[in-house]
Amino acid sequence: MALYAVIMAGGVGSRLWPRSRQSTPKQFLDVFNEASLIQNTFARLQPLVPPEQVYVVTNQRSVEETQNHLPAIPRENILAEPMARNTAPAIAFAAATLHAKDPDAVMIILSADHAIHNVPAFHEVLEASIAKAADPGALITVGIEPTYPETGYGYLQYDASEGKADRPDAYVVLTCAEKPDLATAERFLDSGDFLWNSGIFVWRADSILDQVAKYLPEVHAAFVPVENAVRSGDADAIQSAIDEAFRKTPKISIDYGVMEPAAPDMNTWVVPGSFGWSDVGDWRAVYDVSDKDQAGNAAEGNVIVHNTSRSYVRGHDKLIVLIGVQDLAVVDAGDALLVCKMDATQQVKNIVDYLGSHGLEEYV
Amino acid sequence: MALYAVIMAGGVGSRLWPRSRQSTPKQFLDVFNEASLIQNTFARLQPLVPPEQVYVVTNQRSVEETQNHLPAIPRENILAEPMARNTAPAIAFAAATLHAKDPDAVMIILSADHAIHNVPAFHEVLEASIAKAADPGALITVGIEPTYPETGYGYLQYDASEGKADRPDAYVVLTCAEKPDLATAERFLDSGDFLWNSGIFVWRADSILDQVAKYLPEVHAAFVPVENAVRSGDADAIQSAIDEAFRKTPKISIDYGVMEPAAPDMNTWVVPGSFGWSDVGDWRAVYDVSDKDQAGNAAEGNVIVHNTSRSYVRGHDKLIVLIGVQDLAVVDAGDALLVCKMDATQQVKNIVDYLGSHGLEEYV
Repeated sequence: MALYAVIMAGGVGSRLWPRSRQSTPKQFLDVFNEASLIQNTFARLQPLVPPEQVYVVTNQRSVEETQNHLPAIPRENILAEPMARNTAPAIAFAAATLHAKDPDAVMIILSADHAIHNVPAFHEVLEASIAKAADPGALITVGIEPTYPETGYGYLQYDASEGKADRPDAYVVLTCAEKPDLATAERFLDSGDFLWNSGIFVWRADSILDQVAKYLPEVHAAFVPVENAVRSGDADAIQSAIDEAFRKTPKISIDYGVMEPAAPDMNTWVVPGSFGWSDVGDWRAVYDVSDKDQAGNAAEGNVIVHNTSRSYVRGHDKLIVLIGVQDLAVVDAGDALLVCKMDATQQVKNIVDYLGSHGLEEYV
Repeated sequence: MALYAVIMAGGVGSRLWPRSRQSTPKQFLDVFNEASLIQNTFARLQPLVPPEQVYVVTNQRSVEETQNHLPAIPRENILAEPMARNTAPAIAFAAATLHAKDPDAVMIILSADHAIHNVPAFHEVLEASIAKAADPGALITVGIEPTYPETGYGYLQYDASEGKADRPDAYVVLTCAEKPDLATAERFLDSGDFLWNSGIFVWRADSILDQVAKYLPEVHAAFVPVENAVRSGDADAIQSAIDEAFRKTPKISIDYGVMEPAAPDMNTWVVPGSFGWSDVGDWRAVYDVSDKDQAGNAAEGNVIVHNTSRSYVRGHDKLIVLIGVQDLAVVDAGDALLVCKMDATQQVKNIVDYLGSHGLEEYV
């Protein structure tokens, strides 16, 4: 059994506008330090996964930039999607590729643009997940102990009959729930047997391919020729198989397409963790996991704050001065600047949509 | 009797930072429209005062820029102070100069950086003031009907024994009060016989020179040689008399030095007006007199507001997006950007002081 990591880097992360752009997706941003989110994602896999066993699934436009950010991984490990088809086809693509190269491949699937604070605790959870993934057919999701009724995440209900999931061990998943409304999220939180779905998965390539075949046969059929082509080693054949597969496959997420219908089989598992995880979904999330001063301000760049509290400021080239403000995010990206109340950071996406539909694509 | 205007343009207006700078004082800013404040001040004197009878008192550094903004006035009408000595010496300087040229000169003194909305009403007040100024020794201040207990202005108490000052006529001033504390300002407002001191004065040059001689003999003595030199017409003699006068004169304001002590003589007068006057003292004042949309936002430049109300935004080169904010001033000046709660705009001066004392003079 050999361990591989598959970093999913397909999105733009438009709620981090104005820093995230079509031309500079979120994973390439240096949100927390001088390294980009994808560099941090790669770095925290070390020494668990050797660089030559780290793969990235991304769009064709981002291949060069991905290689620039991750020079240590071989170019052929960057798997380019000809078009976006959501996560089930992306994962099938990676699984087919790995399975062709290594029939015993175990895959860790991670998002390129999440943040994790406590790397040793994260490794402990991964190791428990990897151990469980050796079971034939087992699908493991990393779950996060919820701290508030977040409506932006999926939830996993686990079998708590043998006790609360309070250590990094595998628990049977009973149900997968899509992003809930607030009342439902509150119920989940109160019930005590729901975890956030981190989007981090661990499984054998053959396990996930079997489940894709069972629940998403169209997706599976599309990627069988990719696996065969990879096995042949013919670069042209591989490329045309990939192009064909993405043309044929439907758009569907792994959660909706596989994890939800597979749960009743009682072979999907969750390993709980508390390692300071964030999906870095919006500026509020960035603020939450940033270092702060005593007034609760997280400021970076040429910034002066005066009588200001609980605010996030990211400077660019100019001096930024805040006076008398609370709960504000101010983000300067050079050609565009955002001033957003902290409880409205989800609305940033609306503005990006507005810009795109009003002839302001230069800012998108 | 000939009518002259003297535009006082000596300050920086640091509470309009980051737009106001040592190198770009407030009067040169286009705060409300494409014209600068000093251009608006000049324009609203027309046709009352011919351009060749408009004078400006400013610092030597701003002479060129003043001429650029007011090409219609003769260069010799720009009176340059070698150093800042507050308003009494500045007014004595202008009065001595005008009196040498025209013993019957009547002067309107105005700030270069105020805003006036209703120009016909303003002219009506000026005309009443000019008529009264013909009386020997009379000193006239334009007063503004107060609408709230402002602590940043001086106040004038008038003799209300013949009725409330509700028309543009001259009322005897009983007392001049410096900027009051809030309780005092509230008392002034309740009393009904206090007006704001607009800093607009009208008087004969000989009237004010006499009063300066009486209450500020040192200031008067310093400028007698200036008047004599102007009468001689010798440019070098004029310049050295000016340099000498400013070296000798104390720093003192016309309000504290002349208007307050002169009030008991019962020959200082106030003409009340309601013409949409503002001292444009800070961003809150700019917001108050700006045109607003239905949500109470005043936005200029490349700006998008979303779920935002009662806010002022002044863009520069970049796109600025506000989401979910209330009562905020956002001012981009290119190299520096201010984000300030509307009730904290007076604190902008503190930041300018901080910048100056922390090696950040490039932003001052």
